[in-house]
Amino acid sequence: MKIGYFQFSPERGELSRNIKTVRRRLAGTSCDIIVLPELFNTGYLFSSIDEAAALSEEIPKGATTQALSEMAASSDVAIVGGIAERDGDHLYNSSVLVRSDGEIFIYRKLHLFGFEKDVFSPGNREPEVFDVCGVKIGMMICFDWYFPETARILMLKGAQILCHPANLVLPYCQVAMPTRCLENRVFAITANRIGSESVGDRELTFTGRSMIIDPLGRVLAEAPVGESCFECVDIDPQVACDKRLTSRNNLLSDRRAELYGELTVG
Amino acid sequence: MKIGYFQFSPERGELSRNIKTVRRRLAGTSCDIIVLPELFNTGYLFSSIDEAAALSEEIPKGATTQALSEMAASSDVAIVGGIAERDGDHLYNSSVLVRSDGEIFIYRKLHLFGFEKDVFSPGNREPEVFDVCGVKIGMMICFDWYFPETARILMLKGAQILCHPANLVLPYCQVAMPTRCLENRVFAITANRIGSESVGDRELTFTGRSMIIDPLGRVLAEAPVGESCFECVDIDPQVACDKRLTSRNNLLSDRRAELYGELTVG
Repeated sequence: MKIGYFQFSPERGELSRNIKTVRRRLAGTSCDIIVLPELFNTGYLFSSIDEAAALSEEIPKGATTQALSEMAASSDVAIVGGIAERDGDHLYNSSVLVRSDGEIFIYRKLHLFGFEKDVFSPGNREPEVFDVCGVKIGMMICFDWYFPETARILMLKGAQILCHPANLVLPYCQVAMPTRCLENRVFAITANRIGSESVGDRELTFTGRSMIIDPLGRVLAEAPVGESCFECVDIDPQVACDKRLTSRNNLLSDRRAELYGELTVG
Repeated sequence: MKIGYFQFSPERGELSRNIKTVRRRLAGTSCDIIVLPELFNTGYLFSSIDEAAALSEEIPKGATTQALSEMAASSDVAIVGGIAERDGDHLYNSSVLVRSDGEIFIYRKLHLFGFEKDVFSPGNREPEVFDVCGVKIGMMICFDWYFPETARILMLKGAQILCHPANLVLPYCQVAMPTRCLENRVFAITANRIGSESVGDRELTFTGRSMIIDPLGRVLAEAPVGESCFECVDIDPQVACDKRLTSRNNLLSDRRAELYGELTVG
């Protein structure tokens, strides 16, 4: 199975331009799963909730999801990318998984970062896993990495590959993701963005270094800090089904869930 | 507050010699908390459960705990160290916290590694936190690091410092502990051992590199791979009470515990 990321610099507010950038880059790819950055179609900073609402869309009928569906079908690839989702009165920082057969799945970011709280509602559903070519896929978005619970829940639900759209502005995630993969024995694709954005007195520069990591925490691919980068690697996703750590240890059966009650105390 | 570790090479089966090594090294220390390796008094490998039983002791009345109590009182230091605990018919891979006022607290390793399963029962109690000089201390032992649940539960119960006796034979823990500290905003003292042991066809070499890490994941002290090392650093434990990550994010209030139910499913 070939899995990859497309790291680039989305232009703020330029939906059709960003979709076109992705379409051009993905045309003719022979990858099975491609991950795009968080909010890849809208950019990251919004000047107001109204601007965010205007740039958001319903899933699946919005223009971005429709465009991703066309790309997925024509290139026979599953695409995961972050978009601003509108559902009734709520906006969510969401990730869609669009399969080549037209099926569409949604994950809504559970842990919102900084100014996102002014615009988005936090995800209101447990993370779920979805099937791509018989392989179980989990989605998490950017700051979700900080909370070990996110990746853990996805692994416990069977995820073999974590698809992780991101707009990282700090250097910590790239240090931590090998541990997230090791502790869960899963693959991860962190698709970060590059470039800068400024709105009013807010200015952010994104840290690139998108990564594909294996279940032993080894970095299989890493993008540069400040350049666009499309990369695919070959993996055997079945490796992530093997939770044996030693001849006597197994990640799942060694857990002591009966003593972990504190984790669900808010 | 001064916190430290004593990394050394315990001699297998030589309880009084190992205790003497610790007593000599700790005499006159001005540290507030010192962490010793896992099974620091017995060594790590046992030829049989009978040998382990013979080397184990009840807490608090066993010889090691009594010796640690004397050292703690005479040097006015709290000591955390790993010992083989006997409780009725069960042996536990335990850590004791011995305070200078004579109070003694126990943690029993939840996640047993490899051959430990032939000898020890897994810990049967939730991890708890204990007070030293007004600072909340959590204990975890070696392989417990692999399961993010362990450190997480201790943090949720208020731990500011994770005291982590270890007998590490692989290089992963030292890579992961900065993430454990960052994701929980706590200090950690990993006290690993050095040297080798062999029993029958089992041979192990321990990886040293004991560490003290701060709540931002910065390594404040790191011991060499293969040498004894006693090190203390000055910290402000109150830093670990501040769970703000940004002006809009807080590690505790941003958790979505109501959606984490999967974590307690065995």
